[in-house]
Amino acid sequence: MKAVRLYEYNRPFGEALKLVNVPDPKITSPTDVIVKIAGAGVCRTDIHIVQAVWRDALGNPNLPYTIGHENAGFVEEVGSSVTGLAKGDPVICHPLMTCGLCRACRTGYDMACEHGVFPGLDGTDGGYAEYLKTSERTIIKLAPGTDPVPLAPFADAGITAYHAVKKALPYIYAGTQVVVVGIGGLGHFAVQLLKVMSPATVIALDTNRERLTFAEQLGADRVALAADDGGIKEVLNATGGSGADVVLDFVAENDTPSYALQYMRQSRGATYIVVGYGGVVAPTTLDMISKEINVIGSIVGSYAELTELMELNRQGRVHISSTTFPLSDYEHALDELDAGRVLGRGVLVP
Amino acid sequence: MKAVRLYEYNRPFGEALKLVNVPDPKITSPTDVIVKIAGAGVCRTDIHIVQAVWRDALGNPNLPYTIGHENAGFVEEVGSSVTGLAKGDPVICHPLMTCGLCRACRTGYDMACEHGVFPGLDGTDGGYAEYLKTSERTIIKLAPGTDPVPLAPFADAGITAYHAVKKALPYIYAGTQVVVVGIGGLGHFAVQLLKVMSPATVIALDTNRERLTFAEQLGADRVALAADDGGIKEVLNATGGSGADVVLDFVAENDTPSYALQYMRQSRGATYIVVGYGGVVAPTTLDMISKEINVIGSIVGSYAELTELMELNRQGRVHISSTTFPLSDYEHALDELDAGRVLGRGVLVP
Amino acid sequence: MKAVRLYEYNRPFGEALKLVNVPDPKITSPTDVIVKIAGAGVCRTDIHIVQAVWRDALGNPNLPYTIGHENAGFVEEVGSSVTGLAKGDPVICHPLMTCGLCRACRTGYDMACEHGVFPGLDGTDGGYAEYLKTSERTIIKLAPGTDPVPLAPFADAGITAYHAVKKALPYIYAGTQVVVVGIGGLGHFAVQLLKVMSPATVIALDTNRERLTFAEQLGADRVALAADDGGIKEVLNATGGSGADVVLDFVAENDTPSYALQYMRQSRGATYIVVGYGGVVAPTTLDMISKEINVIGSIVGSYAELTELMELNRQGRVHISSTTFPLSDYEHALDELDAGRVLGRGVLVP
Amino acid sequence: MKAVRLYEYNRPFGEALKLVNVPDPKITSPTDVIVKIAGAGVCRTDIHIVQAVWRDALGNPNLPYTIGHENAGFVEEVGSSVTGLAKGDPVICHPLMTCGLCRACRTGYDMACEHGVFPGLDGTDGGYAEYLKTSERTIIKLAPGTDPVPLAPFADAGITAYHAVKKALPYIYAGTQVVVVGIGGLGHFAVQLLKVMSPATVIALDTNRERLTFAEQLGADRVALAADDGGIKEVLNATGGSGADVVLDFVAENDTPSYALQYMRQSRGATYIVVGYGGVVAPTTLDMISKEINVIGSIVGSYAELTELMELNRQGRVHISSTTFPLSDYEHALDELDAGRVLGRGVLVP
Repeated sequence: MKAVRLYEYNRPFGEALKLVNVPDPKITSPTDVIVKIAGAGVCRTDIHIVQAVWRDALGNPNLPYTIGHENAGFVEEVGSSVTGLAKGDPVICHPLMTCGLCRACRTGYDMACEHGVFPGLDGTDGGYAEYLKTSERTIIKLAPGTDPVPLAPFADAGITAYHAVKKALPYIYAGTQVVVVGIGGLGHFAVQLLKVMSPATVIALDTNRERLTFAEQLGADRVALAADDGGIKEVLNATGGSGADVVLDFVAENDTPSYALQYMRQSRGATYIVVGYGGVVAPTTLDMISKEINVIGSIVGSYAELTELMELNRQGRVHISSTTFPLSDYEHALDELDAGRVLGRGVLVP
Repeated sequence: MKAVRLYEYNRPFGEALKLVNVPDPKITSPTDVIVKIAGAGVCRTDIHIVQAVWRDALGNPNLPYTIGHENAGFVEEVGSSVTGLAKGDPVICHPLMTCGLCRACRTGYDMACEHGVFPGLDGTDGGYAEYLKTSERTIIKLAPGTDPVPLAPFADAGITAYHAVKKALPYIYAGTQVVVVGIGGLGHFAVQLLKVMSPATVIALDTNRERLTFAEQLGADRVALAADDGGIKEVLNATGGSGADVVLDFVAENDTPSYALQYMRQSRGATYIVVGYGGVVAPTTLDMISKEINVIGSIVGSYAELTELMELNRQGRVHISSTTFPLSDYEHALDELDAGRVLGRGVLVP
Repeated sequence: MKAVRLYEYNRPFGEALKLVNVPDPKITSPTDVIVKIAGAGVCRTDIHIVQAVWRDALGNPNLPYTIGHENAGFVEEVGSSVTGLAKGDPVICHPLMTCGLCRACRTGYDMACEHGVFPGLDGTDGGYAEYLKTSERTIIKLAPGTDPVPLAPFADAGITAYHAVKKALPYIYAGTQVVVVGIGGLGHFAVQLLKVMSPATVIALDTNRERLTFAEQLGADRVALAADDGGIKEVLNATGGSGADVVLDFVAENDTPSYALQYMRQSRGATYIVVGYGGVVAPTTLDMISKEINVIGSIVGSYAELTELMELNRQGRVHISSTTFPLSDYEHALDELDAGRVLGRGVLVP
Repeated sequence: MKAVRLYEYNRPFGEALKLVNVPDPKITSPTDVIVKIAGAGVCRTDIHIVQAVWRDALGNPNLPYTIGHENAGFVEEVGSSVTGLAKGDPVICHPLMTCGLCRACRTGYDMACEHGVFPGLDGTDGGYAEYLKTSERTIIKLAPGTDPVPLAPFADAGITAYHAVKKALPYIYAGTQVVVVGIGGLGHFAVQLLKVMSPATVIALDTNRERLTFAEQLGADRVALAADDGGIKEVLNATGGSGADVVLDFVAENDTPSYALQYMRQSRGATYIVVGYGGVVAPTTLDMISKEINVIGSIVGSYAELTELMELNRQGRVHISSTTFPLSDYEHALDELDAGRVLGRGVLVP
């Protein structure tokens, strides 16, 4: 089959990643499932992988391997102990292959599985390919007749936004002002989810006016442009001068954490939820205590959270904006993302 | 009456603070209460006040004023609308005078009162004196016959530790390893409270072996000495290599936040609760998300929390270690604290 | 002034309650506020008061007194210590006059104030009158120019529904099926609030088809008619056979609790929130444990909750359906309510 | 092997249950584990099984089958996909065999597994035998050298008490008065756990003075004898007249729920946690709302909760009181339990 594999770090996408022929994956364990990929989401993390940002955190995986961790498609073949799945069933895959036995798996935090395997990231082959080998525990069956292609981005961008919004909920009541930083693949879900799941007043912050218009279409109550000051002035203005009660930062690189600490409510406990990465967040401990600030890291959501999110999508309460590219155009898709020209999410179609 | 007042910042204690005669406070509002001070706790914040650490955060208060924010004594006189209090009743005072009408006051966060007045800190006269004028809302009546002197440190050191422990509780279950950093006035409460209120395994961390022995007497399960590496090696050892699940940092200056981030559990969500101040906590956003770290600021507790803490003390489940000094020896008391020679808490007695 | 007062229990409304002339209320305490009533909501509890349902629970109040506990209007006069309110300011009143000093008041449960006074219920004069004497702590100031008349029902029906919905939130995630029993004054708020504050799938249950249509207009996802079987069949059908995850019962008299226990999810932990009254809820302890059922009582909301609700109304996210009656038509208004002919809430206008 | 099997309902224990020879269990699935039973706890539920109390709730299982759901022993043999377990490892078994794939299993409520199998209850052979066939997911490995015999009661009595105490924790703060009803196999754990995990004031209630003395030895702060009035007078006395804030009822049959509703705090929200069964709890809805009562059912705990409890036992913070009987004396062991003559828990040893 065809697959886009990482051969070298820190090269242009078309050189770091190559479209090659590899053997089709085979069932080797009774709980294996092989999925015929219908769509594979193109994520900023794919760019970071090429840039070696994750290399050390992932234990320096052997190259080459197939990237792509946001996958949806159709069941192709299942292992001997898998029940309830048949060839042709439309499915979406939770990105992490988990053990089911460790404390994290048993208590609802399977994304922190002690024995988790992350196809497309840690050297295990991912979904920029025609077929993906995954395990029974990752599979969510979709309603018969569902087209999986546009749903792929729910598998990572979607549940990462969902998980972050869930972390924000305890801090939200009527009148709470929540800033969503970065209206890209994740942020465009967060805006919608905050409106569906809470009474928050949602303020979208981005450097790009087109994205702010997009955010308003998705339900944002107000918008703020991140100009030279990172949006401090516009956020303070949009919050009536009080500052944000909660910030969901899907960028979190360069100066965004520093700006966030400045446009957060100064007078009492505000909450800063970090989802993006690449920067440093450096409050003084005097500020941390005198303002009772919370700084909370948030990673991908759990399998159960992905089922909840798919239910919201099924109900028509959360929509996805996506653009498809043929798998062979992976370089173009990544370039478009890198240049900030994709509204919503790009999806590769084999 | 006699009172110890701040005249100048950044001078030796005996010059910055002077023992002078001032007029006795008078009732001016129907909800006023005048307390004859029996004991006033000596807090590291008093040192920080002299060092001007809080000056800007407190709006640059007019000098001179009487410091002392950890007060217990006997009711001397009450305003016309105050009921249930009589001259001679032993009482302890919540440090903050609150409005009772704002959202914070009405929802259990009165320490964040929008109109709060903080005697001893913000330019309002505090309790390093013979009498303190406070308001009905700060008063907790003690059982008849109680000696308020040794209880004074509960009013700030106690509830600040209590509030921090309450913030830690959601992250604690059987087997959770909690590091308490700094076994001083606050930390010596935190060790006890963790044992009374939770099933945590408590590890005391300090630079001073005598304090570690003290911590063991208070119930710490294990101890770690903060040597050149800030205790990283000994904490990792005390936690069986896994690192701390929760850190309660009552120091939080210089490199302690940086050390804490290193001896916290790396594999999944650890929680760092900041109570001390003076430093900067600066995790990368990549660490924040990939390890799902929480960094949580914690300030003084609420009035309701102080009543809970006094109930634990009444039940004999939380003890205080204190050393008394005559009010006129305030300079010596502050010097002893500054030099780290007070075990538990110092209390000034007028 | 004119006032509708209760003279005798268990008589027709026109005989139990009489419209009489009484002296205008006077300021007697520094925290008093006199409100010129613009609208007073007509509540099923008013009917229950006449029926002596509450007599014993309220300590057998002396008759006559003025009823009416759902009040909005304009500030007429304030006591000497009241700040921030001026004659003519539009306001809504929290129904309970609270002390502000007890643990309940200090921890966000002021509706459980140990010294609470309940005008219109406990023998203290309420708002079926031209003027109401209340206290500073009950007052929420509305935006200048706001017409308080149609807002009165938020003061009790609104926050009682709001408080119940807040109790339901921890049990709700995407896909949770919530039944609202009784689409009257409270239920018509609950349907809207569930949609604004949560991702619940809302099923409205009533004996009256017109109210079900009303519920759909308010956002209910599905409806069920309570026929001879109390709606068991239709709720099971509306939930795809699984039964309700959460029931908010605004009726809770006669057999409704028994029906609710039958149309709740049988296979695992369902939650039954009781808001109405008049019946008995009697699960077996075997059912309670083997199904891990929660049965939760819910009373009126707190002052802070009323401010949140008014904020949602200000944002246009929660609407009220009300019908006004002149104060002198109180008998007719109560008859209409008793007969189930009021859609939303009736409001008396002096 | 020898096994004690249920042949007939509603007969004396020696006739309903027979000690017979049956074939040893065999591995048939890759995730099977066969445990050589060291100890099998004798539970009141075993009596209820004989009395057919559970028959319908369990789908009328085919007779005969081997009872016993509280099991500890040594690994005898494992299926092909089981890792980390070797013959001779000491283990304790979670009572429920769970699927690991359903929402309940994935979110920390595996005791509500949609496909759960309950050996010893639902017709699947349990642990009143020499060997038990269970699955990998039920096994908790104990430290090498641990004697599993006395630990068996943790497997059900222990985690059922633990789960109930966890449900109580959100309602407990310093000064909260918690009544534990029934100081038997479960209650004797609950008393200890409340003291280890919370600052509650614990009041033990039983009909038997010897058990009350036992409770005091386990840490109960006060005791109350359930005389003719079910303990109402003594509980009110023990709580200083205020009534219980929280009741954990491990009996919940006959009039105990009715008594509990009377000795609970009447003035504001009290919580009644039902763990025993056999009766009906029947508050009026007027009481439910005017007192904001919670009635909460609680079943066996999760696998993760059992690991937490075993950790507390390993730390020496929770002790078990047990009496061993040879397996062949099962009739005597059940008679002793039925007569209330076992202090702590009885354990059968094959």
